[in-house]
Amino acid sequence: MPDPHPDSPADLAPDPRLARQVRFLLELDRVKHVLRRNRLADGSRRENDAEHSWHLAVAGLVLREHAPPGVDLERVLVMLLLHDVVEIDAGDTFVYDAVANAGRVERERRAAERIYGLLPPDQAEALRTLWEEFEARATPEARFAAALDRLLPLLLNHANGGVGWREHRVRQRQVREVTRPLAEIAPALAEMAERLIADAVARGYLDPA
Amino acid sequence: MPDPHPDSPADLAPDPRLARQVRFLLELDRVKHVLRRNRLADGSRRENDAEHSWHLAVAGLVLREHAPPGVDLERVLVMLLLHDVVEIDAGDTFVYDAVANAGRVERERRAAERIYGLLPPDQAEALRTLWEEFEARATPEARFAAALDRLLPLLLNHANGGVGWREHRVRQRQVREVTRPLAEIAPALAEMAERLIADAVARGYLDPA
Repeated sequence: MPDPHPDSPADLAPDPRLARQVRFLLELDRVKHVLRRNRLADGSRRENDAEHSWHLAVAGLVLREHAPPGVDLERVLVMLLLHDVVEIDAGDTFVYDAVANAGRVERERRAAERIYGLLPPDQAEALRTLWEEFEARATPEARFAAALDRLLPLLLNHANGGVGWREHRVRQRQVREVTRPLAEIAPALAEMAERLIADAVARGYLDPA
Repeated sequence: MPDPHPDSPADLAPDPRLARQVRFLLELDRVKHVLRRNRLADGSRRENDAEHSWHLAVAGLVLREHAPPGVDLERVLVMLLLHDVVEIDAGDTFVYDAVANAGRVERERRAAERIYGLLPPDQAEALRTLWEEFEARATPEARFAAALDRLLPLLLNHANGGVGWREHRVRQRQVREVTRPLAEIAPALAEMAERLIADAVARGYLDPA
């Protein structure tokens, strides 16, 4: 008999393993509430982490030919889908905010422990390890995923007239710094980023400093 | 020299193939504006197609052990990520609205032609074919992806107290009808769906008819 008053639909799962999987999936609904600094391409509102992660996974798929040879697309997609779930607890840390970034690693490590820990232990271990691989930029998959995570917001910021950049007075130098890893991974994407930055400065979207 | 006044950041791409890929990625930003009927797990607002597609891809990953033997996870993830992009043009069609569903197939076919057609021809062909495979439930990958597309909204609707079901006066019979394909694909997930439906009726979330 299912519990007649479950706290969560997960309590209705026919076995404990599926219950843990469902609990994780429902917890991840909160990713849809984590707002990023950048706005959508039309500037109408801020993007949330679920939308961002979806868009990145699509970018991984569409731009796969720019990945280093031998990269396993499935692993890239999984990294891109899950890289920001730690922000349920840790919050979005603006890439250009040095103070907030100081505590980021420890906040996110604790979040990963709690959130992935909702899963059955074998899955928790596998997905937390993959997230650590992404964070450490430890493999070609992780470096390609991280490169896309830098390129896509650049595209959106340019498309919406740099509203997020102007709001936070972001400097050309800062954007160049965070997009630098693109050059080692995907030269054509790095060239794209370079042109977007130069054009954004010319238009006054980015501070020229 | 990049065009100093591009209509789109895609015009700054260093080659025409990448320009098409970027144009497709920017067009897909509009998926974030397509609202579904169901609400988030906490009931606070309606879900959009980008969030839904992200959540589904995560569900595909976490629930992969429930897929039929030999299913290719990468293909499942790609189907789940892209199955709703046609709704940029065709709009979300409520699964329980028979009148709206009558014109759905033709609307979505035209949308697929336009939207996938933004990509380089080889990618357009590959991704449109995969979407048709999903729509036709033609393979185990497509049937597993479609099953998740039925299960996850059920979980969210149950979690938020059935607010979307009550608002649209959805009947138990209708939910059973759309979740029926689960039984052939994934018995444990079908059992989960059955328990969620029975519990939702008991709580008054679903009309018992």
